[in-house]
Amino acid sequence: MGTDANRGDVRSTGVIMSTRVRLARNLAGRKFPTHPDPSDRADILAEVRRAIQSLPDGADFVWKDLENEPPLECRILVERHLISRELAEGAGPRAVTFNPGRALAVMVNEEDHLRLQCLLPGLAFHEAHDRANRLDDQLSERLEFAFDPCYGYLTSCPTNVGTGLRVSAMLHLPALVMTRQIEKVFRAVYEMRLAVRGFYGEGTEAFGELYQISNQATCGKSEIDLIDDVEAVVFAIMRYEEKARVELATAERGQLEDRVWRSWGLLRHARRMNSEEAMRHLSSLRLGLALGVFGDLGMPELERLFLYSQPAHLQRLEGRELDSGDRDAARAAFIRKSLGAEAN
Amino acid sequence: MGTDANRGDVRSTGVIMSTRVRLARNLAGRKFPTHPDPSDRADILAEVRRAIQSLPDGADFVWKDLENEPPLECRILVERHLISRELAEGAGPRAVTFNPGRALAVMVNEEDHLRLQCLLPGLAFHEAHDRANRLDDQLSERLEFAFDPCYGYLTSCPTNVGTGLRVSAMLHLPALVMTRQIEKVFRAVYEMRLAVRGFYGEGTEAFGELYQISNQATCGKSEIDLIDDVEAVVFAIMRYEEKARVELATAERGQLEDRVWRSWGLLRHARRMNSEEAMRHLSSLRLGLALGVFGDLGMPELERLFLYSQPAHLQRLEGRELDSGDRDAARAAFIRKSLGAEAN
Repeated sequence: MGTDANRGDVRSTGVIMSTRVRLARNLAGRKFPTHPDPSDRADILAEVRRAIQSLPDGADFVWKDLENEPPLECRILVERHLISRELAEGAGPRAVTFNPGRALAVMVNEEDHLRLQCLLPGLAFHEAHDRANRLDDQLSERLEFAFDPCYGYLTSCPTNVGTGLRVSAMLHLPALVMTRQIEKVFRAVYEMRLAVRGFYGEGTEAFGELYQISNQATCGKSEIDLIDDVEAVVFAIMRYEEKARVELATAERGQLEDRVWRSWGLLRHARRMNSEEAMRHLSSLRLGLALGVFGDLGMPELERLFLYSQPAHLQRLEGRELDSGDRDAARAAFIRKSLGAEAN
Repeated sequence: MGTDANRGDVRSTGVIMSTRVRLARNLAGRKFPTHPDPSDRADILAEVRRAIQSLPDGADFVWKDLENEPPLECRILVERHLISRELAEGAGPRAVTFNPGRALAVMVNEEDHLRLQCLLPGLAFHEAHDRANRLDDQLSERLEFAFDPCYGYLTSCPTNVGTGLRVSAMLHLPALVMTRQIEKVFRAVYEMRLAVRGFYGEGTEAFGELYQISNQATCGKSEIDLIDDVEAVVFAIMRYEEKARVELATAERGQLEDRVWRSWGLLRHARRMNSEEAMRHLSSLRLGLALGVFGDLGMPELERLFLYSQPAHLQRLEGRELDSGDRDAARAAFIRKSLGAEAN
């Protein structure tokens, strides 16, 4: 488990992209959104909106009624990890609200009436938990949450009953993939009763060698213990990744450099590229930057490329909906331009 | 069949890399090199050498006793298509001799006592045949060749009996490969009783989308008819390739540009590359140059890269024998430097 000092150190290695704490809450006496005959969704929406607006900083929160939001905007929110695919693609009154920095967000009428999250860059479980908790406390003064003295918070899916807490981190693990240790790591994670997911959460593929590690159980332990468990595992995986990177950077320097520079060459010159391939090459560059193979690019510029290479962001950048082939051409052009290779 | 005028036109499209005419000859009354108890190889060598030296320009011919040649130099000669792999890897007295421009060459003690060839760039069957014939005439004034009034020239392998003639062209067919028409072309070639071979001749794989088309039969027709047959087929394939290129350059411009630029990016940035991959990417560049996708590079520079990316040439460039891994690194470095990308 890291002290604050080596946590700071950790953020800078870039293995842990972000940390997320999520709380599932439902309004007392109202049927779950997944109930065959749910409570009126518009009522729930209005009640939550009033509660948000009455927060001390409630006026700053952005409120998006997803029913009236263009599908492209909904997909943008998914790509920013502010809402789930399910909420984006759902129907009927549903919403998301978030603070100006987008660290705090609440989905309304997803699987539960409320899904609060705090999403922070790097390794920041306790900070994320503190902020999510503060929001939860403020909202619980304004809304009555379904809570059972024996079971804890009641949720639509039994796996969330109890604390309603899910904590997760997004890890960039290219060296464990390259050195073929990733499966071994996953087996250890499963044995700890944690889950590994892909880039867009539950049921999605890993893109760009990014993996989300999260808790499965949400009851039987205190919130702090749940968080400490996940943090310990995430911290250990981060150390494995760092060790694998050092191995690569010494014993397999040639292979590493070849991979990084090939990705650089393709990103700078390809004329068509799908998002999966783009993320794979951007992942190489991220690894190359971390290991000093390569210094032409800053990490913020790279994060921007990760974000805008995603389909919805790319289409908003282009100002129109594009079919898959046009997207691949637009993506390649955008990346080339960003990497200063337009003249070639 | 091309007139001289459109032959000139043809050379410039770059589909036909080179033309070769080869004559198999054996000394009368001497056992073939492949005979279980062959005639003394050193005697044959000496006799042929005297004949070459007594030619009007014989003093200019380079003579290489391959028995005393380092293996790397033998492989260089294979990569320049001056000798076969079999001769390079053989044992005992054997030689190659060639004129200063390397267009004319004679292998001694390969499968036959003499294998004369004329190898010229572009489409030049009749010029190559004229020059090979002239050398054959000059040598036949100095050596008695095994010749049967009924069968023609006698050779070690029955497939060469008759004229002893093999004519071939090396074709660059990337558009037929990309548009998946290459198999259809091969079937037509086989039906014409011609053979398709890879880059290094009989029994070798096609590298860099280069294919050698040659006659199979060497008897039952005059030399001129044999050459005309091959030329007609080669000419037709060239036209198919050109047609496929025009199709690609219009209907599939995006796919074509993507392929060419990806190859450019990999050649300029990869840190390790085997010769098969290098030739594949150089093939893309060659196609890109021909179709004006791309103009940063001259065709002569590209030909030089093709030649020096081959293992033996690369090792001579480096001044030492290299294992396969070191060769791949040296090849990538050489190509990067040649393409002006060293700084990246």
